[in-house]
Amino acid sequence: MFTINDNYQKLPGSYLFSTIAKKVSAYATANPDKSLIRLGIGDVTQPIAPAILEAFHGAVDEMGEAESFRGYSPDSMGYEFLRSAILENDYKSRGAEVYVDEIFVSDGAKSDSANIQEIFGADNKIAVTDPVYPVYVDSNVMAGRCGSYDEKTEKWSNVIYLPCTLENNFVPEFPKEVPDIIYLCYPNNPTGTTISKEQLQEWVDYANKNGALIIYDGAYEAYISSPDVAHTIYECQGARTCAIEIRSFSKNAGFTGVRLSHTVVPKDLTCGGISLHGLWARRQNTKFNGTAYIIQKAGEAVYSAEGKAQLADQIAYYMRNAKLIYESLQSVGYQVFGGVDAPYIWLKTPQNMSSWEFFDYLLEKGNVVGTPGSGFGPSGEGYFRLTAFGSYENTVAALERIKGL
Amino acid sequence: MFTINDNYQKLPGSYLFSTIAKKVSAYATANPDKSLIRLGIGDVTQPIAPAILEAFHGAVDEMGEAESFRGYSPDSMGYEFLRSAILENDYKSRGAEVYVDEIFVSDGAKSDSANIQEIFGADNKIAVTDPVYPVYVDSNVMAGRCGSYDEKTEKWSNVIYLPCTLENNFVPEFPKEVPDIIYLCYPNNPTGTTISKEQLQEWVDYANKNGALIIYDGAYEAYISSPDVAHTIYECQGARTCAIEIRSFSKNAGFTGVRLSHTVVPKDLTCGGISLHGLWARRQNTKFNGTAYIIQKAGEAVYSAEGKAQLADQIAYYMRNAKLIYESLQSVGYQVFGGVDAPYIWLKTPQNMSSWEFFDYLLEKGNVVGTPGSGFGPSGEGYFRLTAFGSYENTVAALERIKGL
Repeated sequence: MFTINDNYQKLPGSYLFSTIAKKVSAYATANPDKSLIRLGIGDVTQPIAPAILEAFHGAVDEMGEAESFRGYSPDSMGYEFLRSAILENDYKSRGAEVYVDEIFVSDGAKSDSANIQEIFGADNKIAVTDPVYPVYVDSNVMAGRCGSYDEKTEKWSNVIYLPCTLENNFVPEFPKEVPDIIYLCYPNNPTGTTISKEQLQEWVDYANKNGALIIYDGAYEAYISSPDVAHTIYECQGARTCAIEIRSFSKNAGFTGVRLSHTVVPKDLTCGGISLHGLWARRQNTKFNGTAYIIQKAGEAVYSAEGKAQLADQIAYYMRNAKLIYESLQSVGYQVFGGVDAPYIWLKTPQNMSSWEFFDYLLEKGNVVGTPGSGFGPSGEGYFRLTAFGSYENTVAALERIKGL
Repeated sequence: MFTINDNYQKLPGSYLFSTIAKKVSAYATANPDKSLIRLGIGDVTQPIAPAILEAFHGAVDEMGEAESFRGYSPDSMGYEFLRSAILENDYKSRGAEVYVDEIFVSDGAKSDSANIQEIFGADNKIAVTDPVYPVYVDSNVMAGRCGSYDEKTEKWSNVIYLPCTLENNFVPEFPKEVPDIIYLCYPNNPTGTTISKEQLQEWVDYANKNGALIIYDGAYEAYISSPDVAHTIYECQGARTCAIEIRSFSKNAGFTGVRLSHTVVPKDLTCGGISLHGLWARRQNTKFNGTAYIIQKAGEAVYSAEGKAQLADQIAYYMRNAKLIYESLQSVGYQVFGGVDAPYIWLKTPQNMSSWEFFDYLLEKGNVVGTPGSGFGPSGEGYFRLTAFGSYENTVAALERIKGL
């Protein structure tokens, strides 16, 4: 008689963005005359850049001729043309020591950040900054690592939370109990804040000293403008012996609907003499069959001269929105954070509203959709996330509505 | 101090096809003058059909305009246009009861067949036909369900093997011990044989009677020509309460390098009142962000009138190869199986050679690459797989070489 994975039963409610989608859909159905502006889910709106479209079309044509048709990729790691482009642009240009065979191309940072925990033992205790992208914790809950959920505190009994709030300027402190695995995401989703390279170096030193592993999510790297912020954790001394880095094409190239990412597992990363690189290679070769060739060719074009120039314009477009949101909200008295090195603005809800109260208020009174901070963890309560990924026109309109509330 | 998933250490050697690739690469490097013909890995060679290319180009253009650009899909299940096309063509047309919201679109049958075990408890005992596609067992080994590996018998202590050999005409018998989860793949990879709808019904009845779950891999459905073979397990009475079906676009549409598949989890499938559909939805929404929009549009074109006609020609092309391989090998005294409802020909190695001995013999003397049967499990020892996925010209040439040995 088969049984189910009981850990799934421990998960409260449904995935955050599914809940939001259902709430918004219900409101829209009940109010067909209202035009909603969505600054909630972190989804891009600018179309795919011309240089990338051209690469897409070219690759599709290749697939239509027997001579250039591509079936299974040589292995699940991805084609070397893409891994080389990633190496040159994302690591060598930053002075970071990474090798081409340490880069694993995949179909999205969500998949990689959810799957990476599989190569670790069930007994590892994880730490997450709080608030945090829900996938880190949920994927570990499914694997049975998080203990039980306390509905009152909204915490898991076996997870170490590193609060990031106004009080500590969103910079996590080292926990009392040493974690085995630490998830860090900078620039941060959801707070839009980041830490300096010096502060990141302290985490690398902490991990190396304590035999902990850092899973570093750099999905928003393209938005960094501050000079003292690291573009990759491998800019830090010693990161090769304690850190795995996950990167995305979703937010720099508008690939949320295209699906492309990469993960770096340095060969210096070992546990009792066993290479984590070997474990991840085995995981990927067994459970994944590579990313579509046409998508990898599109990914290569992200690093062409034209591609880079076109994408720099897209980033600038979104960051103009970020600046507008930040300054407009501040001008009417909101406490706002982020928005400088990331496309997210994190705000303190006014009048002590809870995050969901503010969500409903903004949806119903302003017809603007944002994301409740509490959906990202207990320390997100009383905060709210707006994204800069809308069109400029919609962003302006949304802010007019918010200012008029 | 972090620890690794020890189950990975139990896996013997590397993934079968990686091993073959390395052996072939070593031979090719040492013998640059030899031209190898690859009839090993089950990879297609015919280019993507024109109707599908057109859909690809159209979808790429849509992604280039703000009005038609698509970011994240509404959820990870896939767009309804594709799920509806799948429903109509793969299930309704066969008289099978499946609903559109029971179809989960994904990036490949390999991913789905490896990931599906996550929703089950660690205590489930699996059964596999033997020989078998290695992913079923390996993914369960990684989850700690298979016990320990015995190098001598090449068996896992906690897996129930259902031998499929010449002696039982490749039709598995019910095991002495009742399994919790049963993996079935028909038409079968690697043997190329299949079972009748009546025989499949017996397995459905067996599963329902014993509270077992069937994971049914129908990746080769498009190759079925025998009238008494089921095209989906949902043609069988009662399959909705005991079976999950996984389907691929790799072999019917040449999508091995495109990556598209779907999995059906009927809402009638429950365990202690808990819906497996809900578990899989949660798994996919947490760990997967959907398949690329352009690939889903290409998948839709697979079901257009033009797409169907073009793909029927591709299938016929491969099946001409299959017939040629079958008949040519038989004419020189090989014992051959499969090749009627599947693109695989399974042969008994001559002169009591082991599977790997025959692999080396064929590689070195004939410069033809096949797949050793023992790579698929202990009952595959003494057998060998050839695929019909080469070009006709290569297939003819390979058979001339084999006949000349």
